[in-house]
Amino acid sequence: MEASQIVYIIDTLFIIFSATLIILMAPGFAMLEAGLVRTKNVTSVLTGNVLLYAVTSMVFLLWGYNFMFSNGGLFLNGVENSSGYSLYAVLFFQMAFVSKTVSIISGGVSERIRIVPFMIFAIFMSGLIYPMIGHWTWGGGFLKDLHDLAGSTVIHSVGGWALLAIVLILGARKGRYAKNGAVRVIPASNIPLVTLGGLLLWIGWFGFNGGSVLSIGSIEKADLVAKVIINTNTAGLSGAIITAIAVYLKYKKLDITMILNGALGGLVAITAGADVVGLWEPIAIGAIGGILVVIAVPLFDRFKIDDPVGALSVHLVNGIWGTLAVAIFADFSFLTQLKAVAIIGLATFSITFIIIYILNKLIGLRASEEAEYDGLDISETGVESYPEFNKSKLGI
Amino acid sequence: MEASQIVYIIDTLFIIFSATLIILMAPGFAMLEAGLVRTKNVTSVLTGNVLLYAVTSMVFLLWGYNFMFSNGGLFLNGVENSSGYSLYAVLFFQMAFVSKTVSIISGGVSERIRIVPFMIFAIFMSGLIYPMIGHWTWGGGFLKDLHDLAGSTVIHSVGGWALLAIVLILGARKGRYAKNGAVRVIPASNIPLVTLGGLLLWIGWFGFNGGSVLSIGSIEKADLVAKVIINTNTAGLSGAIITAIAVYLKYKKLDITMILNGALGGLVAITAGADVVGLWEPIAIGAIGGILVVIAVPLFDRFKIDDPVGALSVHLVNGIWGTLAVAIFADFSFLTQLKAVAIIGLATFSITFIIIYILNKLIGLRASEEAEYDGLDISETGVESYPEFNKSKLGI
Amino acid sequence: MEASQIVYIIDTLFIIFSATLIILMAPGFAMLEAGLVRTKNVTSVLTGNVLLYAVTSMVFLLWGYNFMFSNGGLFLNGVENSSGYSLYAVLFFQMAFVSKTVSIISGGVSERIRIVPFMIFAIFMSGLIYPMIGHWTWGGGFLKDLHDLAGSTVIHSVGGWALLAIVLILGARKGRYAKNGAVRVIPASNIPLVTLGGLLLWIGWFGFNGGSVLSIGSIEKADLVAKVIINTNTAGLSGAIITAIAVYLKYKKLDITMILNGALGGLVAITAGADVVGLWEPIAIGAIGGILVVIAVPLFDRFKIDDPVGALSVHLVNGIWGTLAVAIFADFSFLTQLKAVAIIGLATFSITFIIIYILNKLIGLRASEEAEYDGLDISETGVESYPEFNKSKLGI
Repeated sequence: MEASQIVYIIDTLFIIFSATLIILMAPGFAMLEAGLVRTKNVTSVLTGNVLLYAVTSMVFLLWGYNFMFSNGGLFLNGVENSSGYSLYAVLFFQMAFVSKTVSIISGGVSERIRIVPFMIFAIFMSGLIYPMIGHWTWGGGFLKDLHDLAGSTVIHSVGGWALLAIVLILGARKGRYAKNGAVRVIPASNIPLVTLGGLLLWIGWFGFNGGSVLSIGSIEKADLVAKVIINTNTAGLSGAIITAIAVYLKYKKLDITMILNGALGGLVAITAGADVVGLWEPIAIGAIGGILVVIAVPLFDRFKIDDPVGALSVHLVNGIWGTLAVAIFADFSFLTQLKAVAIIGLATFSITFIIIYILNKLIGLRASEEAEYDGLDISETGVESYPEFNKSKLGI
Repeated sequence: MEASQIVYIIDTLFIIFSATLIILMAPGFAMLEAGLVRTKNVTSVLTGNVLLYAVTSMVFLLWGYNFMFSNGGLFLNGVENSSGYSLYAVLFFQMAFVSKTVSIISGGVSERIRIVPFMIFAIFMSGLIYPMIGHWTWGGGFLKDLHDLAGSTVIHSVGGWALLAIVLILGARKGRYAKNGAVRVIPASNIPLVTLGGLLLWIGWFGFNGGSVLSIGSIEKADLVAKVIINTNTAGLSGAIITAIAVYLKYKKLDITMILNGALGGLVAITAGADVVGLWEPIAIGAIGGILVVIAVPLFDRFKIDDPVGALSVHLVNGIWGTLAVAIFADFSFLTQLKAVAIIGLATFSITFIIIYILNKLIGLRASEEAEYDGLDISETGVESYPEFNKSKLGI
Repeated sequence: MEASQIVYIIDTLFIIFSATLIILMAPGFAMLEAGLVRTKNVTSVLTGNVLLYAVTSMVFLLWGYNFMFSNGGLFLNGVENSSGYSLYAVLFFQMAFVSKTVSIISGGVSERIRIVPFMIFAIFMSGLIYPMIGHWTWGGGFLKDLHDLAGSTVIHSVGGWALLAIVLILGARKGRYAKNGAVRVIPASNIPLVTLGGLLLWIGWFGFNGGSVLSIGSIEKADLVAKVIINTNTAGLSGAIITAIAVYLKYKKLDITMILNGALGGLVAITAGADVVGLWEPIAIGAIGGILVVIAVPLFDRFKIDDPVGALSVHLVNGIWGTLAVAIFADFSFLTQLKAVAIIGLATFSITFIIIYILNKLIGLRASEEAEYDGLDISETGVESYPEFNKSKLGI
């Protein structure tokens, strides 16, 4: 058997393994978000998570993939031309990424967005915005000099910018910000789900970043994949530890939702450069990522930007930080990285703003005040999340 | 190193990877079913799920495997003769399948079946019925012309037919059907668990179907494995989307339990033919699978066949549909497929009916009326599922 | 491509796959323990689980790995010298093990230990005790003749001995043992989480034991890996079945927490020798493991050693049993095994006792009586686990 055949087989297995881990992030996001919102909105968040995986993946298979990597045409074309490994596997791997851009948004708009308009936006994200950004960068377009291994910018900050645009139009949850400026704390309803979701995301990240090397088929590549995975993990460790120290010093309590968001912040931050830094740098990159989460969460609240799960702090702030960190900790141009961050941010924010503005005018984005008070589960899904458990007034 | 050795190694790793994903379906089924039943029966359902994995796997290792693939003997024999890859891995992979045939049943008989007689039936399923059907088909027997990649018929409809036979003897849950024909809706108790379970099953399916190619050890096989996995996923996407559209049009609500069952229906339907269709056909196969779930769920209720989790609609109806779809969407004989479906259905249904009829006479299948009212957790396991949470009367 | 290169690539993929499965045990332990404790302590247990993964992994990367396998130095050194496969992957794999030694402890000290002193101990465990024991055995030290494939002794009994030492200083939960000797049963708060955790651990074990073969790169190694995995699973099956039979005969109820602990006991027991026994022996090893759990759980209670999750019975008792079973069921010296068990037990117990004794004097190990009554979630984390669900008095 020729070497190229062996590499073809091994890389196909490697890509399938990585894509499977990425898809494990679907239950990861679903559990994290379901645990963070109030019980009256849990089913809605879960329904959104399942549907957005279905809708975005399908759109990307049918249209987005070819838009991103070739010059159009139906998706069968995408797998006709041969390459170093199974293009079916590559299609599957690339598809696994797309839903993440909308999963990131899902938690941040929860507890007040209607599912149908959100799914319409998901079609635009997976069929237009993400493939366009992906075409500019990974598809060999005019931002191809950006170094972004697995998408600190292309996935995470894209999701973050879109979320910011949506939240500005959608507004905060009722009662979240009092007129005197006080912020009402709305506690997470199910901490085991939050933890499970956070840890599944963490594990899925090994496929997300490791798989983005795209080949394990030589000694150099095998080393690189393993280094990327260990660096990914290290940044998560570092983000969790620094956040724990920070919240403990500040409040004398170990708030697990902050610690997990700190870990996720570190994981987002390392996503751009896990392949081009050594084993030490991820400690710093992840630690700064964790600190940024601790700083950003109250900051967004000060501007009355209501993000129930901290997604802006985790994905937008750290997506930007991670992309710039590549230039700080490895030999890449800061200007190139910054330019791409800015262009992609501007493009994503404005296109999203326009789409959402129109959607909001046409069919309305937000659930009615009554539906929000009673919980979106009743109005949107007709299915209560925990119908047998008596609830306290906390959830209202 | 010779090519055959390299393929041996890679295929062993591939089979282990696939089997691990399949075993991830054990928590998948457990969480799905635990979320769908009432809190008072959750521990029983979970205990059944854990025990059926243990019992069926052990029986299959000791006896079933050799019954299915050779001419008898103890299980050590099964790994003596050499082949293209580690027979230990194959034994592990085949073992991973068997518990699924009983997991399928477990939810459908929940909230009224006693665990011990159910486990006795599990022994018959894994030691007699499934290995016999497996021997007829995958073992090279008289139905070897059936094309059923990973078991739309051999696993899913077998589980479904057995479930139907058991439910006919077991009867419906108390209070489920009023005398005037009205169906009492019994809501799922924990939607996050349902979602987690559904998504874990979905991910496990990649190993279920992908692994059933049995080798990734050539360019053609690598392409085939990757195509099978992407097709599997596509049918799930399609099933979820079409079901969401159908329930939304009908009820103006997005019922997540139906959407997940629609996805699972699509996944069952593609299981027979994921390897012999192109990239487009799974969209149709999965969509029809989803529609069949939407149609079948109320239909079974009309005949007072009480299936708390929709397993008959997902596994029996779509197991049949998927097997026939092979002949519709690829170049296989419709008659061969239909004949196998009919023979296997008849055999499974009648053998199960006889075993269950006798078991019911000898030791009784059903929990007492009092135990059913109070919940099976107390009478069967002595362990409450959520002892600290105050419950509403909904659960009774 | 040369054979050595191919093996390098495949083994790197294999090690990454195995390490990922091991890290899946982090949510496994977290869910198991969160389900077994009362709702008022759930967040604390989860916070401990997340933080101990972060802290121990980081310490091991920075220092422990080199202490264990070479002559000191910072962790970059560890991956400079070349070997048969990516040392990055090996570092990742070894790191995945270390947190398990503390996860084992975490459940046993739950509901009364403060998180900060526990994390300080975790630093000592991952930076001193475990690397020292690991150096003596797997690192080629004076106990290198011990046969312990994946750590019945080096991981599980080490965790168990340390737990025993801590519990003796920490004491039992308030109200657990009445003055007349009666044991107050404190029920698990969330059985689905217990089940999910148990099954995730089970699946993670395939990577734990299978990966410990360290190479899949020849026909013999591929067979060995597959045999190890199937043996691991068999011992779990056997442990679950025998425990189910035992509790059913004794109580006429199928207590799922005992059944899962029986399975885990079987899994711990097979961890030392899965590679050197045939396919039959794991049935006996796992069955004895399950029986030992059934016997040990009430025994520890008789000595008022309070272990809320049964970790001593699962990990300490079966860690010892599994290590000795190697000499009983395969051709190894009983004395060598016993000597290592004794020396490692003595060393771990005494060092832990000293560290914990000093920690307890300096900063206090135990939460205040009031904090214990109200639940540690409030005092330690400030985050309630299920804030909206009304709770019964059972949890107090």
